[in-house]
Order: sequence, then structure tokens, then C-alpha cells
Amino acid sequence: MFQNFDDIADPSLAKERIGRLRARLAAAGVDGFIVPRADEHQGEYVAERSERLKWLTGFSGSAGVALILAGQAVIFVDGRYTIQVREQTDGGLFDYDSLIENPPAKWLKDNASRGLRLGFDPWLHTIGEANRLRDALRDLGGALVPLGDNPVDHVWADQPGVPLGAVGIHEQRFAGRPASGKLAGLAGKLTAAGVDHVVLTDPSSIAWSFNIRGSDVPHTPLVLSFAIIGADGANALYVDSRKLSAKTKSYLDGLCELKPPSALEDDLTVLAGLGKVIGLDEQMAAERLRLIVDEAGGKVKAMRDPAALPRAVKNEAEIAGTRDAHRRDGAAMAAFLCWLDGEPGGSVDEIAAASKLEACRRRIGEKHQMPLRDISFDTISGAGPNGAIIHYRVTNATSRILEPGSLYLVDSGGQYFDGTTDITRTVAIGEPTSAMRRHYTIVLKGMIAVSMMRFPPGTRGLDIDPIARIAHWKAGLDYAHGTGHGVGSYLSVHEGPQRIAKSGTEVLVAGMILSNEPGYYRAGDYGIRLENLVLVEPASAIAGGEIEMHGFATLTLAPFDRRLVEVDLLSGEERDWLNVYHRNVLAEIGPLVDAAVRDWLEAACAPV
Amino acid sequence: MFQNFDDIADPSLAKERIGRLRARLAAAGVDGFIVPRADEHQGEYVAERSERLKWLTGFSGSAGVALILAGQAVIFVDGRYTIQVREQTDGGLFDYDSLIENPPAKWLKDNASRGLRLGFDPWLHTIGEANRLRDALRDLGGALVPLGDNPVDHVWADQPGVPLGAVGIHEQRFAGRPASGKLAGLAGKLTAAGVDHVVLTDPSSIAWSFNIRGSDVPHTPLVLSFAIIGADGANALYVDSRKLSAKTKSYLDGLCELKPPSALEDDLTVLAGLGKVIGLDEQMAAERLRLIVDEAGGKVKAMRDPAALPRAVKNEAEIAGTRDAHRRDGAAMAAFLCWLDGEPGGSVDEIAAASKLEACRRRIGEKHQMPLRDISFDTISGAGPNGAIIHYRVTNATSRILEPGSLYLVDSGGQYFDGTTDITRTVAIGEPTSAMRRHYTIVLKGMIAVSMMRFPPGTRGLDIDPIARIAHWKAGLDYAHGTGHGVGSYLSVHEGPQRIAKSGTEVLVAGMILSNEPGYYRAGDYGIRLENLVLVEPASAIAGGEIEMHGFATLTLAPFDRRLVEVDLLSGEERDWLNVYHRNVLAEIGPLVDAAVRDWLEAACAPV
Repeated sequence: MFQNFDDIADPSLAKERIGRLRARLAAAGVDGFIVPRADEHQGEYVAERSERLKWLTGFSGSAGVALILAGQAVIFVDGRYTIQVREQTDGGLFDYDSLIENPPAKWLKDNASRGLRLGFDPWLHTIGEANRLRDALRDLGGALVPLGDNPVDHVWADQPGVPLGAVGIHEQRFAGRPASGKLAGLAGKLTAAGVDHVVLTDPSSIAWSFNIRGSDVPHTPLVLSFAIIGADGANALYVDSRKLSAKTKSYLDGLCELKPPSALEDDLTVLAGLGKVIGLDEQMAAERLRLIVDEAGGKVKAMRDPAALPRAVKNEAEIAGTRDAHRRDGAAMAAFLCWLDGEPGGSVDEIAAASKLEACRRRIGEKHQMPLRDISFDTISGAGPNGAIIHYRVTNATSRILEPGSLYLVDSGGQYFDGTTDITRTVAIGEPTSAMRRHYTIVLKGMIAVSMMRFPPGTRGLDIDPIARIAHWKAGLDYAHGTGHGVGSYLSVHEGPQRIAKSGTEVLVAGMILSNEPGYYRAGDYGIRLENLVLVEPASAIAGGEIEMHGFATLTLAPFDRRLVEVDLLSGEERDWLNVYHRNVLAEIGPLVDAAVRDWLEAACAPV
Repeated sequence: MFQNFDDIADPSLAKERIGRLRARLAAAGVDGFIVPRADEHQGEYVAERSERLKWLTGFSGSAGVALILAGQAVIFVDGRYTIQVREQTDGGLFDYDSLIENPPAKWLKDNASRGLRLGFDPWLHTIGEANRLRDALRDLGGALVPLGDNPVDHVWADQPGVPLGAVGIHEQRFAGRPASGKLAGLAGKLTAAGVDHVVLTDPSSIAWSFNIRGSDVPHTPLVLSFAIIGADGANALYVDSRKLSAKTKSYLDGLCELKPPSALEDDLTVLAGLGKVIGLDEQMAAERLRLIVDEAGGKVKAMRDPAALPRAVKNEAEIAGTRDAHRRDGAAMAAFLCWLDGEPGGSVDEIAAASKLEACRRRIGEKHQMPLRDISFDTISGAGPNGAIIHYRVTNATSRILEPGSLYLVDSGGQYFDGTTDITRTVAIGEPTSAMRRHYTIVLKGMIAVSMMRFPPGTRGLDIDPIARIAHWKAGLDYAHGTGHGVGSYLSVHEGPQRIAKSGTEVLVAGMILSNEPGYYRAGDYGIRLENLVLVEPASAIAGGEIEMHGFATLTLAPFDRRLVEVDLLSGEERDWLNVYHRNVLAEIGPLVDAAVRDWLEAACAPV
């Protein structure tokens, strides 16, 4: 199985580790050190060796920062992790604060002693974040001190080595465009931006640009590496050669110079010394890279990762692939939901359900010779009150039985060569209450409102987000997360720059894939989330229309739980949408499932 | 009448004026000069003496900039004025460009010769705008050169003098809060912001803070003046004493030190020289003020005008006043619409209609001893194709007959002691086409969608804007303006910081007044806009709700044209909203109108 259900928190180890770290800091001549949950690439998933925050403190969330000073240690997390951080770490050792409202730079301004010299690993902080910390410390008469060796690594005796996942070529039939063309496109962008070279630091961008995939981190087929792309067409890829087969090496040799990761600093120093303008994405690139250019007397120009937008706009092959992936994935979901429906009440727990779902995906992949490469994230398998924890991770200690009279929320996805999926369904276990049905229907209305939207060129994700909430707001409800995130093509399940959220300033253009996932959470009772992936596409011609509109084509194919739909709360238009959707689900995935599942699916897709 | 219908464009005068200005620039040692349509206060309405752009070029729009170089002159306007600027100015003298896509700073970067020394009047540009120009010229190896005397004034022999409108006290029964309390509140804000003194440059903020009103510019009761507010409670108002009666002088003496406008520069120099931190709003304050502080070695701290937000959040007296003003204003609208309905087809033109409407407002004001102080802007009175010109101003040359079979759009408002109104209605003249009815109903659906909204704390105007467009977008339509602007309380009809628009980042809080005015424009044919003012208020309790929502209470009271409503396109909820609204209109303004108007109103407010 790709997922494991281990209880990983062990708060008792931190005391000794923090003690050794403090001794090391004193020896290094700094007053403290900042430990982000980040690697050199700022990705969502990191290799085990980069889980320094978890190793040091016990906290295993996907975002957080620890500030270790001589007499105090603070862990900063966001709203998702306020409870979890207290469970996983020793309250006698740590104070806690909000990563959003009172992030480290702000905390330092208000709390740190004058003249504080704070050590940091410039590989693990973006340029933007380093600027904020540096400004805060300067106001205190202190300094942000880059450390060459990460002091956590120094005291972490059995730290795992760098991951060496094999690199594979992402075939043209899935990628749709040859890497040579993509790289030429990037070079053109650099010229337009007045930049000589850009350092690609996001492995998603490198995977997309070179049409390669790897397995260095969980759930996302990334090759941890860097690349320097030149406006002159000269490109270099900095990757550990142990990851490369003869075939991939030969393939990559045709696209770029292959170099060891250790050569990056020297090469960048040389380019900077020649007076080249080096483009860096301040929101993604490590401060270390800026320092190298700066120290060599070169010029840094801030620019967005030039691969970010072209990567987000899927081509025809990627769209066809993702549609195929969603058909198979929907068939797996149908098999899973049919199985769940047939199990006796009270006999299934969250782990059994998540395991079954992964098995269904694996089985459909084998059947169609398109194997499940990984799950696209740890399945959120939440029964009853656990469904109300938005980023719940089930472990042996937390797994609950799916009890009759409760709701079960399952948010999951698969990684296939032809696409990345992400789907959430909420199902009734036994007889739902009328409140459950009402809340489910409100969430469904929000999802349908987005699905039915038409919108003109120039519309941003933040213009879509409120549309999903109209029904919630009318009912005096809301949900504390964005409505949608971008999704990659056999890449990250959370991929920018587009998103449907209050902060979604990126304009949506045809070819982008996003999730559409409103929710409702009743703490201690149940959670509801309904998620389809959608593709931005030109909307079909509108009679009497004057503007070429865009719309969302729904990619995800799996039934909604009709037992939870309060038909009276739907408008005629919403009801039509649901019935047409279900008809389409049956037509598309019906042929892919066994006879027993097909019978179940026909009933599940009957009109409401 | 407050409105006039003169044709003001005379393109023939510019050539000689530009010639004299260029001679003056050469004498002043600069290579060019930039002429914004702005005064020292950056308001929407300016005194005649500040209409330098109009005097110099012939262009009379409310926004624009001319760049006068030795061999070229360019006028920059936004999309509203692309046609008008070409009609009003001499194409042989001027090039034209977009104030939005290619503003002067950008134009200079791309077009100006290296080393260009561009003169500017630092009183007429905000700090932010001066920064942009300075950066652009620095990149060219040139300079932005502040000129002490405005060279346009130098060649404008008969430039009018400064306006000397009488200052009146805005009575406590309308203002709701004494000026002393408001000023103390501002002082508290300064302390919190770490600022010793702030210069208030926006006359709206001064009028609000001191509870005074004036008549220095058209349509908005402003007192052109400056104020310095101290964190220590010491305040100074820089105002021409000729505007003050003994009574207002005595009133103001109790609140601040009264000083002549000429004393501002010296006083600011002294404060800066004492090392005080001076707050300036970079989006509003003149660059001249920053230069004064800078030259005196003082510290400028950027801060938003501290009166902007408290001014926007109306108190109970202001809300009660605005409700009264809307009742009377609605009665005037009803009298006007009733009259228009009774006139024979083809007998009324745009000027006659606008004149009648102003007379109706005047009459209702006299009847209720609450005189119409001014119209709140030039009435947009647009028949047929003129209705499709979003910022149309009717003149003797453009006035059209309201022809049978056409639509008539009228956007107008009144200034009363107790409130400022702004209302748009679109009415059928004779028999409307089915397309007109369909488009009208789509606009109405957008207006109703906003009216019915509930939204949680933290919602910004930009979260509301798309809600107004759902019906448009579904029909393949849109409108090229925001959905709403803030409105003052016997102050500016366009008042920030709140707005309902793509750029509306300000959070909406209870007490703010905004317009709700979607539209539809069919160039060369007709325009439709429907505008009510709404008040943000806590929504009534929602059964089963978990969050205290906000909602909009509609202030405007005047019927929509039932002949244009395609009832089949309305949902049941929308239809209910319209019928309840009309019932309320009848109940509120029925008692204020004559018997004949009342009969008409009853029919106009009948359920659909």
C-alpha cells in the first residue's frame, strides 16, 4: 500500500534533540535558529531527510516553522494544525503561535531581544521569507545569519540520505509536447523578460519542462533537482546521476548539459561573475541562490517561474489523458462506494475503507494496463466527527468505525501516467438526519453553482470563490478553506498558480484544471465535502451572447449520494444539472465496472 | 438650475496655448511638462481654476493627463473617454494613449528621449504617482523636476481665482457625532500608527472631521482646505478666512487653530524640522507635502487617510438622515416618472427630462423644508443610443428626443443636508422589444442577487461583484464598470474606500453605504442600468445559521419599470423580492406624493 496508518508522534524525543541543537548553535555563534518544514524546493511533499521539523519537535504537519532560541522555543502552525501540534509536541518545551496571524518575522519584532543574531539555512527559505526575517531583525539591531551547514543535520546522526528515485521519461503520448519545444518556449520568455538565465527550483517545473518523472518524495512523481535555463538556449540540469538509467541519461543529454547537484553553486557563481542577469522566483527560490548571485556581483531579477503558467495550461494530449484517468478513477470510486454500501453497518473502519479504496484503484489500473503509480495524497478517510477535521489523517490510534446514522467523508486521488485525480464524496452510513441532508444539499448547491458558471476572459479564481458560497451564506454557514486548487498532469495534486480562493488573483484560462470543492464542517459531529475536478474551457456558444465565455467541464465521474439530496432545496436548474451529471457518469464509467457494480451504479445514478 | 447643458469643447484654442506653454517651459529649463486633470486635493470635482487640462487642450473629461514635450503632445484618457477626447481636441496637435494600459510613466519609459527633464507641479500629483514618474525618468537618465510656479497658470491670463464658497456647520442632528469626538478618534489612530501628525488633504475627510460643508466645487459640498491633525490633540485647519462667517469662525476656533492656506508649508517645515513623524496618504496626498517634509529633514510615514474608514461607516443619525433623504428623493423620482409617462410620445428630449427631474427634486425639498442643495452629479439623461454611453453628459448639441420604441436611462442624485442620493432607472418609451425586456430582466436579476445576499464578516467588495454578473455571464453578456461605489453622507457621491468592483479589496462593514448598479449597454442602440443605494447591516437572524452574517438594506425607493420585466426569467425568489420591494416603495413614498402621482405609483408598484 502507498498509504500507511502509523502513529508518528513521539513528543518525548524533542527535549534531548533541542538540547543538542542549542549546544550546536552556541558553538556556531548564533542566538537561535529557525527550522521550517521545507526542503530546497519548497514543495508540499519532502523527502524524509528534509523532515527536520518533525524530527526535532515531533510535529508532522505539512506546514510549520520552529524558532529555537536559547531560552524559548516556539512552533508556528496554521489553523489546520492548532490541535495537532499540541498533541504531537511537548508543551513543556514549546510555545505555540499562528503562522498566519503572527508569523516568525512579526513574532521576532514583538518578542526578540535587541541585537538577536538568528541563524538560518538559506537553502530552506524563499527570498521573500528571508527578506521579511531580515527586515524584522534589522529593526531590532540584530541580524539574520546564513549558516553553511544546517545545525539540525549536524545533530541528526541517522538522518536519511538524499532520495535516489529512478527518473523516467514522461512519454510524448501523455506529455503532448516534446521537451525541446517547451524549453525553447521558456528561453523566449527569458528574452522577453530581459533575463539571461533563470534557475528552475520547483521540481514540478523541471518535470514538466524536461518531460521526466521521478519518485523522490511521496505521492508526487518529482525528480528533486535544479535547472538553469538560458535565454540563449543553453540549459543545464543538476541531478544526481545515480537516478538516471542509460536511456534517461541519453534522452536528457539531448536536451541539456547533465551536471551533479554540487555543480550548481559554482556554475551560478560563474554566470553571475560574467554580469548575467539571473531570474529567480522570489516566492519559490531559495535565498541561498540569491546570495550566490549577490556575492558574485551579479544581478538578480525577480520573475515568476516561467514554467508555472504553461505547465498549468494543459494541452490536448494531457486533457485527453486526464479524461481517461478520471474514467478509470471513477470506476474505482464506483466499485468502492458499491462495496461500502454492501457492508453491514458498523463493520468498516476508516483504515479499512481507505485500504479498500486504494485496492480498487490498483485493481482498475491493472485491468486497464495503466497502473496506479501512487495515491496523489494520503486519503482523508473521516467517519463522523473525524470528517469535520478538514485535513484529517487517519492513523491506527484515530481510526473510527463508520457508524450507522453518521456521515463518512472520503477525499482521495490517484497518480496515473495519464493524469492526476482528486475526488471527495460524502456518503450516508445508514439513515441520515434531516440536518445532514440539508447541509449536504447546501454544499451540493455550491458545487453546482460553480459547475454551471460561465465567465468572461479575465476572470480570476477569486471571482469564482464567492459563487460557491451563496447558498452557505444565505443559510448562515461558511467553510474555512478555498473552493479549489490547481491540479497537475501526472504531477502535483496541488499545483499553482491558479486557485479558486479569496487569494486567487490568477486569471483562469482554458486548459487549466482546478478542483471545485465546497464543504461544511460541524465540529464534533460530521463533515461534508464534495469535490469534482473541472477543466476551464471555452463555453459552448450562448444564444444572444456577445462575449466568448469560458466555462468548466467536469472531469470527475462518480455519483453523489442521492440519499443525502434534499430535492426541494434544489432549483429546477440545479436538479437538471445533477441528473445530467449522473446520466453522464453512468454512460462513461458503466462500461468499465463489473455487473454487480453496474447494477449499483444504475440505482445510484437514477434521476432525483 | 444646478446642471447646465453647454457645449464646452473648442479644439481650436489649444494650438496657441500649447505654443505659449512650450515657450514658458523652455524658459524654465525643462524639456516638457505633465498636466493632470487634478487639483491639490485629488478630488473628482475641481474648481474652474484647476481645469488646466480642459483649458489647455479642450478635453473636459473627469480624468486625463496631458504630456507636453517639445516636439510631441499626448493626452492619456481611460476607456470612458476615448471617443470624447478625439471630438474635443485637435488631432493635429495631440496623440492619444490609454491612461490605464499605457499610463504616462510607462509611455515615458518606452518613448521619451534619454536624459529628459520633465517638469511637474508637485501640488497636482500624489506621492505614488510622482514615484512612478520619477522611477521611469531615472531609468532614462532623466529627471522629474518640481516647478514652483505652475507654467500653465503662468500663460493662463484669465484663470479664475480660488473659490470662496461659504463654510457652513453641518448640524449635529445630521452629523450624529460632534467634531471634537471625531478629532479625538483621529488622534488616537495616529498614536497607534506611530505618527505624530497627519496632513488631511482630502476635503471630504476635513468636512467629515470638522462637521463643516462648503461649496467650492460643483455638486459636492466641500471646503477646499488642508488640516494637520496631531496625535497630541493639537489641530490646525488651513482655510481662506474669507469663506468663514463669524459663526463658523467661532465654531472652528473651538476645535483647532485657524490658519491661512499659505501657512501650511511653513508649519509643516517646522514640524519636520523638529523630527516629527508626518503621516501622508500616498494615494491621496500631494508630492509637494512629501517634498516639504523631506527637505526639512523630517520623516514621512505612509498611512491611509485616518478619516477615510470612520467617514465611510455611517452612524445612526447619518443612517436615519439618509433614509429620510431617500424617501423624499424617491417621491421626486415618482413624480418625475409619472410625468414622463404622461407626456405624448416624441415630445420630450434629454434636456427637458433632466430639467424636469431637477425641478421635481427642488419641489419636494421645498415642500419638506429640506432643500435640494445641489444635484450630486450632472444627471446622465440618455435616450436610445445615448443611454449606451456609460458616462454620457447631455449638451445642447447631443440632446435626443425620447422616441417611442426606445429606452431612456436616467442616472441622477441629490445633495440634501441629511444625505446624498444616487439612483438609476431605465424606462420604456412606448412599446419595448423582447430583447429590451430580456436584457432589462438580466440586469434586474443581477441587482436583486446583490440585494438578497448574505455574507460573513471579512467579505470584500470584490467578493460581491461577481454575484451581480452571474445572470449576465450565463447569457454571454457583461458590463464594463464596477457594480458599486461608496456614497457619502451629504458629501461625495463617489466616496471610498469601499466599492463593489474587481478592485474592491476593502472589507465591507455595517454602516457603509454603496451603490448596487449592474448594467447592460448595446452600443448604438440602448443602455440599461438599475441602481439602488444599499446599506451594509447585520442580517436578521438566520434559522440554523452559525455565523453572524451581514446583508444589504436597500435605501433607494422608486419603482422599476414593470413593462420591462420578463417575469418568466425571474426565479420565484427574485419575483418575491421585486414585489416586496415595490410594496415597500408604495408604503414609504406613497404618503409623500400628490394624488395623481399616487395613482400612478400604485399601478407602477403592483405585483408582477
